[in-house]
Amino acid sequence: MERIPILKMGHFLLVTIQVDLYDRLALTLENDLITMVTQNGSRGVLIDISSVSIVDSFMGRILGNIASMSKILDAETVVVGMQPAVAITLVELGLTLPGVHTALNVERGIELLNSKLGDDILEGGEDDRTLD
Amino acid sequence: MERIPILKMGHFLLVTIQVDLYDRLALTLENDLITMVTQNGSRGVLIDISSVSIVDSFMGRILGNIASMSKILDAETVVVGMQPAVAITLVELGLTLPGVHTALNVERGIELLNSKLGDDILEGGEDDRTLD
Repeated sequence: MERIPILKMGHFLLVTIQVDLYDRLALTLENDLITMVTQNGSRGVLIDISSVSIVDSFMGRILGNIASMSKILDAETVVVGMQPAVAITLVELGLTLPGVHTALNVERGIELLNSKLGDDILEGGEDDRTLD
Repeated sequence: MERIPILKMGHFLLVTIQVDLYDRLALTLENDLITMVTQNGSRGVLIDISSVSIVDSFMGRILGNIASMSKILDAETVVVGMQPAVAITLVELGLTLPGVHTALNVERGIELLNSKLGDDILEGGEDDRTLD
């Protein structure tokens, strides 16, 4: 199990982070995600981190990378399921997740993506929650 | 990260197996799943095993257990994303997954569950793929 599975759900991709991300695994995940966004023409990437209890600067950078790469390919990234303690730590450490949207859970994340896609077609709204 | 996250998606629950299931983790997963099925009144459980490359009798039993428990609570279990090699091994070993439905990927699994729910309301159809 040397790679993290990416699930296609309609226009979106869903990734659940359950293991500690080390360098090579993170690189593989980035590659796989970008490949799948391109292949499927996905418009959004949902990353569930509900089982992650420690977010350090490495994880923050990986999430930021994924968001930047996806953005270039016209897909938004939403991090969902963040534990309260993780949110507190992020703020205390001054770690921002630039370009990454957040939502409480997968369902709200999908709602957020759908509303952003709808907004895209109209004009672009700003009623989401971002960390930066 | 001592427990496997369970994602609520509408009427269904989604679990992605990414790590080797050992006794206590499997028990925790069973407990968590049953609790969430009860709390949310879920009608289906999707278990993604696309990153599982080895299925032994223990894993088979866990999947069977989850299916049986869910069935009692009126929720169907669908295993999705099985690797071809895993399917071959299952057949060669004569391991059946009683009560477990299978689908190619998450999207087809959701379709299957939706069709089963629709059938339930009407009369109960049999056009799905089961291993037993």
